[in-house]
Amino acid sequence: VVDPPAIGPDTLEALFDELFPLCRSITGPGLRRSLEILRRHVPFELEHVASGTRVFDWTVPDEWRIHEARLWAPDGKKLADLEDSTLAVVNYSGPVDRELSLDELAPHLHSLPALPDAVPYVTSYYQRSWGFCLPHRVRAALPQGIYRALIRAEHVGGSHGGRLDYGHCTLPGESPREILLSSYLCHPSLANNELSGPLVLASLYDRLRRWKRRRYTYRFVIHPETIGSLCYLWRHGDELRARLAAGLVLTCLGGERDSLSYKRSRSGSSLFDRAIPVLDEQEGLGFRLRDFVPTSGSDERQYCSPGFDLGVGQIARDVYGEYAGYHNSLDDKAFMRIDRLWDSAERIERLLLLTETSGCFLNLSPHGEPQLGKRGLYPNLNSAQTWNDSTDWLRDGRALRDRMLYVLSYSDGKTDMIEIARRAGCPVTALAPAIERLERAELLTLANPPNGART
Amino acid sequence: VVDPPAIGPDTLEALFDELFPLCRSITGPGLRRSLEILRRHVPFELEHVASGTRVFDWTVPDEWRIHEARLWAPDGKKLADLEDSTLAVVNYSGPVDRELSLDELAPHLHSLPALPDAVPYVTSYYQRSWGFCLPHRVRAALPQGIYRALIRAEHVGGSHGGRLDYGHCTLPGESPREILLSSYLCHPSLANNELSGPLVLASLYDRLRRWKRRRYTYRFVIHPETIGSLCYLWRHGDELRARLAAGLVLTCLGGERDSLSYKRSRSGSSLFDRAIPVLDEQEGLGFRLRDFVPTSGSDERQYCSPGFDLGVGQIARDVYGEYAGYHNSLDDKAFMRIDRLWDSAERIERLLLLTETSGCFLNLSPHGEPQLGKRGLYPNLNSAQTWNDSTDWLRDGRALRDRMLYVLSYSDGKTDMIEIARRAGCPVTALAPAIERLERAELLTLANPPNGART
Amino acid sequence: VVDPPAIGPDTLEALFDELFPLCRSITGPGLRRSLEILRRHVPFELEHVASGTRVFDWTVPDEWRIHEARLWAPDGKKLADLEDSTLAVVNYSGPVDRELSLDELAPHLHSLPALPDAVPYVTSYYQRSWGFCLPHRVRAALPQGIYRALIRAEHVGGSHGGRLDYGHCTLPGESPREILLSSYLCHPSLANNELSGPLVLASLYDRLRRWKRRRYTYRFVIHPETIGSLCYLWRHGDELRARLAAGLVLTCLGGERDSLSYKRSRSGSSLFDRAIPVLDEQEGLGFRLRDFVPTSGSDERQYCSPGFDLGVGQIARDVYGEYAGYHNSLDDKAFMRIDRLWDSAERIERLLLLTETSGCFLNLSPHGEPQLGKRGLYPNLNSAQTWNDSTDWLRDGRALRDRMLYVLSYSDGKTDMIEIARRAGCPVTALAPAIERLERAELLTLANPPNGART
Repeated sequence: VVDPPAIGPDTLEALFDELFPLCRSITGPGLRRSLEILRRHVPFELEHVASGTRVFDWTVPDEWRIHEARLWAPDGKKLADLEDSTLAVVNYSGPVDRELSLDELAPHLHSLPALPDAVPYVTSYYQRSWGFCLPHRVRAALPQGIYRALIRAEHVGGSHGGRLDYGHCTLPGESPREILLSSYLCHPSLANNELSGPLVLASLYDRLRRWKRRRYTYRFVIHPETIGSLCYLWRHGDELRARLAAGLVLTCLGGERDSLSYKRSRSGSSLFDRAIPVLDEQEGLGFRLRDFVPTSGSDERQYCSPGFDLGVGQIARDVYGEYAGYHNSLDDKAFMRIDRLWDSAERIERLLLLTETSGCFLNLSPHGEPQLGKRGLYPNLNSAQTWNDSTDWLRDGRALRDRMLYVLSYSDGKTDMIEIARRAGCPVTALAPAIERLERAELLTLANPPNGART
Repeated sequence: VVDPPAIGPDTLEALFDELFPLCRSITGPGLRRSLEILRRHVPFELEHVASGTRVFDWTVPDEWRIHEARLWAPDGKKLADLEDSTLAVVNYSGPVDRELSLDELAPHLHSLPALPDAVPYVTSYYQRSWGFCLPHRVRAALPQGIYRALIRAEHVGGSHGGRLDYGHCTLPGESPREILLSSYLCHPSLANNELSGPLVLASLYDRLRRWKRRRYTYRFVIHPETIGSLCYLWRHGDELRARLAAGLVLTCLGGERDSLSYKRSRSGSSLFDRAIPVLDEQEGLGFRLRDFVPTSGSDERQYCSPGFDLGVGQIARDVYGEYAGYHNSLDDKAFMRIDRLWDSAERIERLLLLTETSGCFLNLSPHGEPQLGKRGLYPNLNSAQTWNDSTDWLRDGRALRDRMLYVLSYSDGKTDMIEIARRAGCPVTALAPAIERLERAELLTLANPPNGART
Repeated sequence: VVDPPAIGPDTLEALFDELFPLCRSITGPGLRRSLEILRRHVPFELEHVASGTRVFDWTVPDEWRIHEARLWAPDGKKLADLEDSTLAVVNYSGPVDRELSLDELAPHLHSLPALPDAVPYVTSYYQRSWGFCLPHRVRAALPQGIYRALIRAEHVGGSHGGRLDYGHCTLPGESPREILLSSYLCHPSLANNELSGPLVLASLYDRLRRWKRRRYTYRFVIHPETIGSLCYLWRHGDELRARLAAGLVLTCLGGERDSLSYKRSRSGSSLFDRAIPVLDEQEGLGFRLRDFVPTSGSDERQYCSPGFDLGVGQIARDVYGEYAGYHNSLDDKAFMRIDRLWDSAERIERLLLLTETSGCFLNLSPHGEPQLGKRGLYPNLNSAQTWNDSTDWLRDGRALRDRMLYVLSYSDGKTDMIEIARRAGCPVTALAPAIERLERAELLTLANPPNGART
């Protein structure tokens, strides 16, 4: 395992600049190269699934290898070139080498009338096709005449080495109970809706590995969107069902907004679903909230499908559909902003830190109250004035003792700290010192509910 | 099995006229004759339980066979005669052939002071007795003198062929999961509170057998009230517990009111309990709602008893106790009205049709989202403008796709379409096209929760 | 088993006067003597746990036997003497026989600056220490000089006969399902916060044994506070889990307030948790309500610990912390008042009587409605006017019949009479006659939910 170097904003920017020009897709050399670059900072273990493999209701597509893609106007001028922009070619285009009239070419051209200077991002993974994307200003002015379309590309089946690649690794915690942090790699040169997620994921890995202790084990996962999370669930879904407390999909973490936005998991009752609104109100995290919807979003749709129902929500800043650059060339570094990624990573780290003491714990001495006195957690001399006067147990001491008693009384493995704090009449974070004291006294541990239970 | 002819309002009226004069009771020839007449239209399979059989806490009474019942005044004038009205004799009267003074006769006479022209309907099933019913105007003017009471009747025990008869049949659907439609036969010449239920049941059988498809299997049951449903549960209760989604008891479906009234099942959470208020509001079914009460009503009291708790509600129009004719001779065809029966059958058919797609379904491909694209249910070319511009997926197409995703995401066999529509922000009926598409694609099926679960 | 004599207020006062001067602690001869005195009235079976025994997270302390405790001023005047007051010595003090300066003595002196005439009650069970308690007025005026402290006391380990004593007994009811009534003995000469509980417990035993019938079995338990309930749970906790419906800890039942106060159990859903607010409102019991807190209180904290979660609440009048005499010599008979104990016992008896018919029952004939007619609980002649006119079934008869039907319909062993009365639209106590009728007809019995379920 590599000991990765620290990641600051400069590292994020250098990573961005190296990753942005690569022609990624849901399979292929661009994806593999991107994973290798990220592995300098996060020790992802790489796995792959062969093209043609049946994965639940899906089939892993043949691996796409694109070598050249150019479109020439009748006058010989280049209209689109993969060398200039990875968006110029419809992702997953098959080979073509033809001369065609404008009418013949038209169905293969994609542009955005509403954003005449932007190049759209178009894919056709599951139906063989080919095409070019270009600004509508150019597209609208094309003259009649004979165009030349050249695409050199292969679709490589599994028996010839075609495959879908992904990576994952964990930062072990004191408990085998896991929190999933997942993002995706598959869009070529897009910034917010591609690189923001993996870069924040890398920053979070760097931050969490420095924590003095981790109660939860953190699982970092990166894969192409949709078919990649399906492959991951196909291979590791049962593990996740056995171990996961909750999870977050990271997407679109740059952009203009000041605050982050949390999309609840399908169940609406996961650890994050319960903790984020309360922590947000009490600690001012600055999160907006969205309900789960299965009709848009990212890989949380797969993680939350009813056969898994894994309690995975999603964190974003400027959500798909909320900004003009969604799936086109306006989604660039200037829009995304490196400092926004840094801020996103900071906020999510803080959320994770607070969440460490927001879930369900288990009282390890549940038959009667434990004897706190013999552990120095309770006064041994019991008198009326002691509680009122003794300097050892002034206001703070008493509040701590009271909170320890609340935590012990309700930590039955099913009641989380959100609920216990409500009963104790204090903020959730005020329970953390009590939790730590009790953990040190070996009276409390993170609960590890059986498979299927969600904290 | 007879292929029954279509039933129009005229058929209902002819049936009514044939059934009305028969002297029915909870056992006996009048009941059997009535079942045979109904079998021309509904292929009821007939069963019986011998008199004297212990049925749960009850004992099936001896079969009552009444041959003649007449009461003469001192002047020889006939005061009451079974030939003129089946209400003239107390139902289940034993034999008598006596001359008596008015004082001796008085305890055997029944009349309604508040409705002096009406003949009451009186029964004494479980305590041997005899009596006559007559208008209070007649009763009040009776002179002193010697009366003659003649009743020729038998009570036939099980060892001599005495029995209680009932009938049932099913219209099979795609799922073995059943919906029960139950009514009763046992009151002699009453219209709303006797024949309205069986006639609407016959009309519903005729309507449902014409449906192009039935998801649920529909079970049609007819028996004497109370002791009949107890016998049915005694024989078929375990079957019902294993198969029933929900049920409806049909009673008092004619009369003056414009709307129908639904009495919830004991659990308050059956398929109909959940669907009717929402469908009523969204589709304007025109149903009034009543809570379950165990103190009045019909056979839903037996179906919902805590040992069965079958989720059976009740549908009525003018409820017992709401009209003057309840259990007396004012409850006739003029009050009931054939057109009201027709209207009741129409409304209930519509309810059943809507309910077919209101319950719990199961996503058959629950691990990840199914690949809708390969089934033509999702565009294969993915680009920002596709969703906005393409003619294939204009507003309707997108709404349909979104609803398919909602249905798939939440169809875990426990969440019904009432809840899914609430989440999707659309009327329940708007999910039906999505359900049908997904059924055709073999991605969805009606859920068949284990015994005891209620959808 | 002794047949205990009746207990009136005079008996309570005589008991009080005999018990008050004894030097009780959580172990030792004073505790044993007190138990023997109470056994004249309540046939407690005595048990003990040897000192040094590990009990859950605790260890039973060595038995404390105190023989003499005196403190002399430099001028030879006695400042504190166990003979005068059992509060004079710190409870569990070890032996000492020393002359000391005032500075050396100071850490061993306890007084209450805010209540300068009161002697505080101080204990040091789990840390060996010694000390004297005296009025602050005396303490503040002590001159410099040489004092003499003499304490003759032993701490006797389990191998030499040291032990912790407690007692318990039951009043059997028709059902093995139990209600726990528990109080404590361990404070020496305190009134409200010591003797009020055991004396009310004795009065309740005397009252309940005179009841014509008891549905529940009542378990009376008395032990030292905290370590005593832990010992009791250690020995009998599994029994309680198997049998307990709910329980009450009795404490501080004298004092100034007019009403009693109920502290809910940890679950908030025990029989008493559900019944008391409703009965209080409907019957004017005069109970104040407190939520469960694990940070103060009495043995309900142990009974409700998450490993047991026994649904035990607490009843008090003037609660610890609400009166100046808490844990000092002001807590005497004049403050406590014998007539208040009598009133507390009366109110709690009434509560228990009402609670007998407030829990969950089981319909013993749950398949269909039972045939009430054959038991004389329903009219056999069925006619419209019968319900309206017959003298047998006037308003009261009908209400009774309706309530029987509600009780039968919902008595599935999980639905309590609080909920059934809500559905029936009547006060909880209005169901009692229906319950009794149905019990006599062997159609209903107190539910005996499996271990863990709480009514």
